[in-house]
Amino acid sequence: MAEPVFQTLTVIGCGLIGSSVIRAAKASGAVSRIVVADSSPAVLERVQALGLADSATADIAEAVKDADLIIFAVPVLAMGEAAKAAAAALKPGAIVSDVGSVKGAVSAALSEAVPANVFVVPGHPIAGTEQSGPDAGFAELFHGRWVILTPQKREDEPYLDAVQRLADFWRALGSNVERMDAEHHDLVLAVTSHLPHLIAYNIVGTAADLEEVTQAEVMKYSAGGFRDFTRIAASDPTMWRDIFLANREAVLEILGRFTEDLQALSRAIRWEEGDKLFELFSRTREIRRGIVAAGQESPEPNFGRDHRTP
Amino acid sequence: MAEPVFQTLTVIGCGLIGSSVIRAAKASGAVSRIVVADSSPAVLERVQALGLADSATADIAEAVKDADLIIFAVPVLAMGEAAKAAAAALKPGAIVSDVGSVKGAVSAALSEAVPANVFVVPGHPIAGTEQSGPDAGFAELFHGRWVILTPQKREDEPYLDAVQRLADFWRALGSNVERMDAEHHDLVLAVTSHLPHLIAYNIVGTAADLEEVTQAEVMKYSAGGFRDFTRIAASDPTMWRDIFLANREAVLEILGRFTEDLQALSRAIRWEEGDKLFELFSRTREIRRGIVAAGQESPEPNFGRDHRTP
Repeated sequence: MAEPVFQTLTVIGCGLIGSSVIRAAKASGAVSRIVVADSSPAVLERVQALGLADSATADIAEAVKDADLIIFAVPVLAMGEAAKAAAAALKPGAIVSDVGSVKGAVSAALSEAVPANVFVVPGHPIAGTEQSGPDAGFAELFHGRWVILTPQKREDEPYLDAVQRLADFWRALGSNVERMDAEHHDLVLAVTSHLPHLIAYNIVGTAADLEEVTQAEVMKYSAGGFRDFTRIAASDPTMWRDIFLANREAVLEILGRFTEDLQALSRAIRWEEGDKLFELFSRTREIRRGIVAAGQESPEPNFGRDHRTP
Repeated sequence: MAEPVFQTLTVIGCGLIGSSVIRAAKASGAVSRIVVADSSPAVLERVQALGLADSATADIAEAVKDADLIIFAVPVLAMGEAAKAAAAALKPGAIVSDVGSVKGAVSAALSEAVPANVFVVPGHPIAGTEQSGPDAGFAELFHGRWVILTPQKREDEPYLDAVQRLADFWRALGSNVERMDAEHHDLVLAVTSHLPHLIAYNIVGTAADLEEVTQAEVMKYSAGGFRDFTRIAASDPTMWRDIFLANREAVLEILGRFTEDLQALSRAIRWEEGDKLFELFSRTREIRRGIVAAGQESPEPNFGRDHRTP
């Protein structure tokens, strides 16, 4: 194990991501001490039972008072309130970060809530599963995945040093780190994460509501493709409601593009323009090859989930 | 191994599905002899090299002349021509089936092409991967998956017996067998397979065409959900072009429902109706649980593809 990057890490919100940060931080030795705050007594009980933290409390101010790094891992629209609860207790020079999937709104909420003598460096690990809660986390979640930091527009040495240390922390957890403008982050994620979730939620909803096809049939014959969509449509509802509300503009913009393309595709089917279909279906293969080559996907057929293991 | 269900099986078209049928038939002992026909010299060469068949040829008439069961495994719009090429050589009493994802159009094409003294029993195994070609097949592909047979509206004993034997064949390969009306099949599959593919192809196309977000960014940050869609958008372009053309009406109907729902969802985001979003996102979780319970999906997070195996 390497030298700890931070003395005390406090994680606010111990769900899938929060508990994975804790497990990964512990496994890597990136921090010496871990404190958890969570508003749910049931979650705190699990944190205790799983032995995740050195200390766990419902009191955010109590949790952050000795922290060198504070990571907010609550739904994006809850970040502001949580940061306000922490504000007065924060140590001068502490680094305040988060794991939210929207950076513009969260960055503004965090910056507004906390005093000027702490460093706000918003972040977002592009990793996760469809499961939720402290039991769902695991230490390897961030291995080989990207963490995007969206620092404030500041060039002073202490701030740049704080950004650097946060990057070191994530790298210690196995991640690759990238810096990006918050606005660009929100557009990129609208494409690679928010729209896919919206589409998946929508198609699963459509299938559930049909009169002519039963839910039992949808489930039984889902191996034809549908089941792939149900994974991300099983993600946490509160988290995703917040993401769509907090990244409304970018999501609606990308959704507009998607709908336009879908109408063209629909028209090509109606008018039996086979060449147009073939052209699109050939192009899309390349993107997957690129993702596999970028180390962000299993090369195994069917994600390896049932290949040769019936 | 059980008693063979058929003496000689001929598979026309040796891609992912055709070669998996062959491997599964051989592994299970469901047939005594296997003949392959394929129009591609490269495929025939691979069939030879992999030792898949007792005999392989480009000549469909030659391939079917001794067959007791003939399975057409070519793209759905190629079924009619292939069946015509087989027609004159078919043994009286032989069973003619297929693996196409559209049953109305294929059933009509097969029935029209072959003589009245053979039994046409269309079929569709709900199984596959995003890969193509004879090397991509494997014997376990059909284990625990459903095969839908869409028999003709005939009640005579010899025909019912033929349907029964084909069902026995698929069960020997590890499948569950269901019978269904061809029209209903095409609607069910429009929901569970065709629409998901259309949506996946579309979103991958949309993402590739954006000006503000680069393809490199899309690939790099795809673990946020996008990569799930790229799997089925990497499926065989010819096969899928044919499916959308052959099942046009049902696909457009289901697509209409999807688009309507998506517009409502878009409106809910625009007007910040968080409750509506939350309600949908909660409902969709249940569908996945049902699919896992129905044995059609891995219960592992992330399909098990990278959980704890960085």
